[in-house]
Amino acid sequence: MIAQKYKKMLEGKSVIRQLAEFAADRGQEIGYENVFDYSLGNPSVPVPPEFTQVMIDMLSSKSPLALHGYSQSLGIPAVRKKLAASLNQRFTMNYTENHIFMTSGAAGAIAHAVRAVTKPGDEVLTFAPFFPEYHPYIDLTGATLKVVPPNTEDFQINFALFEEMLTEKVAAVLINSPNNPSGIVYSTNTIEKLANLLRKKEKEYGHEIFIISDEPYREIVFAGVDTPYVSKYYDNTLSCYSYSKSLSLPGERIGYVAVNPAAVDADLITSMCGQISRGIGHNCPASIIQLAVAEVAELTSDMSVYETNMNLLYEKLQKLGFTCVKPGGTFYIFPKALEEDAKVFCQKALKYDLILVPGDSFGCPGYFRMAYCIDTEKVQRSLAAFDKFVQNEYAK
Amino acid sequence: MIAQKYKKMLEGKSVIRQLAEFAADRGQEIGYENVFDYSLGNPSVPVPPEFTQVMIDMLSSKSPLALHGYSQSLGIPAVRKKLAASLNQRFTMNYTENHIFMTSGAAGAIAHAVRAVTKPGDEVLTFAPFFPEYHPYIDLTGATLKVVPPNTEDFQINFALFEEMLTEKVAAVLINSPNNPSGIVYSTNTIEKLANLLRKKEKEYGHEIFIISDEPYREIVFAGVDTPYVSKYYDNTLSCYSYSKSLSLPGERIGYVAVNPAAVDADLITSMCGQISRGIGHNCPASIIQLAVAEVAELTSDMSVYETNMNLLYEKLQKLGFTCVKPGGTFYIFPKALEEDAKVFCQKALKYDLILVPGDSFGCPGYFRMAYCIDTEKVQRSLAAFDKFVQNEYAK
Repeated sequence: MIAQKYKKMLEGKSVIRQLAEFAADRGQEIGYENVFDYSLGNPSVPVPPEFTQVMIDMLSSKSPLALHGYSQSLGIPAVRKKLAASLNQRFTMNYTENHIFMTSGAAGAIAHAVRAVTKPGDEVLTFAPFFPEYHPYIDLTGATLKVVPPNTEDFQINFALFEEMLTEKVAAVLINSPNNPSGIVYSTNTIEKLANLLRKKEKEYGHEIFIISDEPYREIVFAGVDTPYVSKYYDNTLSCYSYSKSLSLPGERIGYVAVNPAAVDADLITSMCGQISRGIGHNCPASIIQLAVAEVAELTSDMSVYETNMNLLYEKLQKLGFTCVKPGGTFYIFPKALEEDAKVFCQKALKYDLILVPGDSFGCPGYFRMAYCIDTEKVQRSLAAFDKFVQNEYAK
Repeated sequence: MIAQKYKKMLEGKSVIRQLAEFAADRGQEIGYENVFDYSLGNPSVPVPPEFTQVMIDMLSSKSPLALHGYSQSLGIPAVRKKLAASLNQRFTMNYTENHIFMTSGAAGAIAHAVRAVTKPGDEVLTFAPFFPEYHPYIDLTGATLKVVPPNTEDFQINFALFEEMLTEKVAAVLINSPNNPSGIVYSTNTIEKLANLLRKKEKEYGHEIFIISDEPYREIVFAGVDTPYVSKYYDNTLSCYSYSKSLSLPGERIGYVAVNPAAVDADLITSMCGQISRGIGHNCPASIIQLAVAEVAELTSDMSVYETNMNLLYEKLQKLGFTCVKPGGTFYIFPKALEEDAKVFCQKALKYDLILVPGDSFGCPGYFRMAYCIDTEKVQRSLAAFDKFVQNEYAK
């Protein structure tokens, strides 16, 4: 009696993964350096050397029993204290260690945050375009994910449709800014409008509506972009963070939930995350990784390459006549395809060894995503392929 | 609307944790070396130095992007391949990498295994005495844990009661040998009898009944003890392993599920674990820890101290007139208390700075657990405290 629910999930293979596999296969044929693989959001710059040094120092000098010992289920207290202090300094918040819950990256953070503030049957709203993994993340908690259609003008929130969908059943709103796949950052104006509307609806419905703010790209923001810290604008906020992108540590599975101290039952929510862990078998991230990350909390990888790449691509896409909102951060750009069906468009692009991901699975058909976390030199070489692609396939 | 289910769980504070806190507080007063703290199952011997060296070597020489990159959701293929080969050699099995799913320790392994082979409403049977965390592990999947009362004669399986409880509703049987808290190892005879009964009931009910074999203490077995590899005796077995004890790495959260290749849909079950991960936010253990563990898969910490400690305690307890089954492995012993209520017994022991855990939460009232993963020197000093305790409190 194997579980049919999970068996069925195996049938829907991720489009991104299929494209990445195609890129790998094609790389075998013509050399991977000649495949313009914009499919995967894998960081392309290394972790800061300070992280590596901290790891080596700890392994060389610390007692193995202390270094590899059980961490508390909420995470190592000294680590949580350091991260709270770091957040407070950067965002003028007042977190203590009692508001920080260490997780296996953002996926782990969302798994706990959603379970803490919803119950089966509740609705969670998110905004297209959105990270497709939100579906399993939310649906398998027993809550239901509903997607507010996109505002393709600027990829800020479509407030008219949002307000319609914001019924009494909604227990949480899941936002992701800077956004995968659009690369845009929600403006202060957007966050304020969102916060005001949620406060109004909280009163009207007589229950909390939490913001679950998925922020793995928080540190990847481009020059001059307005980047409000969501939790400053709305008390009932659970910030979900990951070091996968900012420290280029995706495989080490390290992140946290930071519960706004002004949220209803903030300390309780944090403690509850430890209980949720017991049920989902998580039991906090690797202790040595927790300890090392706390030592380099103020650092990030050198992510300037992402802005360089974005500018190169944005300029070229504009010249080629694409409709495209300029990204404010991340390493994604999300232009409109040159024909209605982005799947057909992306299929045609493969002929030019351009690996682009159709926007359909992000809840935004007709658009496509490019993950430009690759070498600038490769981006530059890809521009000629773009010229050829557009000229051959779409010249009038 | 914070989730009441998890809020309620906070109220039932673990007895073990309370005792450990008492021990820490008392240690502040009289020096921790004078507190005979038998409360916590934390390894007391360090990881083999080879592990530390492998970690340092990888950090010093490997590309950080490769070292810290995303692992596949089932775990790093080369790691799974090595672990499969190691298991095959030791237990003459025929696992491939497609039967190994890397997890965050045994807790993560059980979280996936149970979800893979049960659905909400199904029953999972386990045998007292049992690890109390099985309750949240199982209950929060939606399945129901039912506990077969103990066979206090030898802590093997109480087959008469087991067969009564083995109804059509049972989808899986969760066993733990070597056992926490009793320290006993299920004999080949026990495992064969269990397997035969399950095969008979599978036919009778027309559905699979899986064994989920929780084996974190598999490598901690004492001289001359018969230790069958469960999966060899029953095809529909999912072995859940952790390196927490054998490599003394509890904080690094590393283990695996090994699905018997002869199990129904074995490959599918392994793949499904990757889908389950998407819903519970697990996304595989830290990549550097996966890689390091694979390099030392044939090693264990020097665990001879546990057998030394067991012999010291077993002999003393016998002399003092305790009823006690001799442990075959682990670092636990589970004697009968000298009065009916083990909670009262353990309370009295505190006066002698002996920290013992009552058996009630292990489903076996009247007994108590000692975790002797402490220095032998301390065990030796504790023997006098035992003398005094028994003489003062229980001498006729």
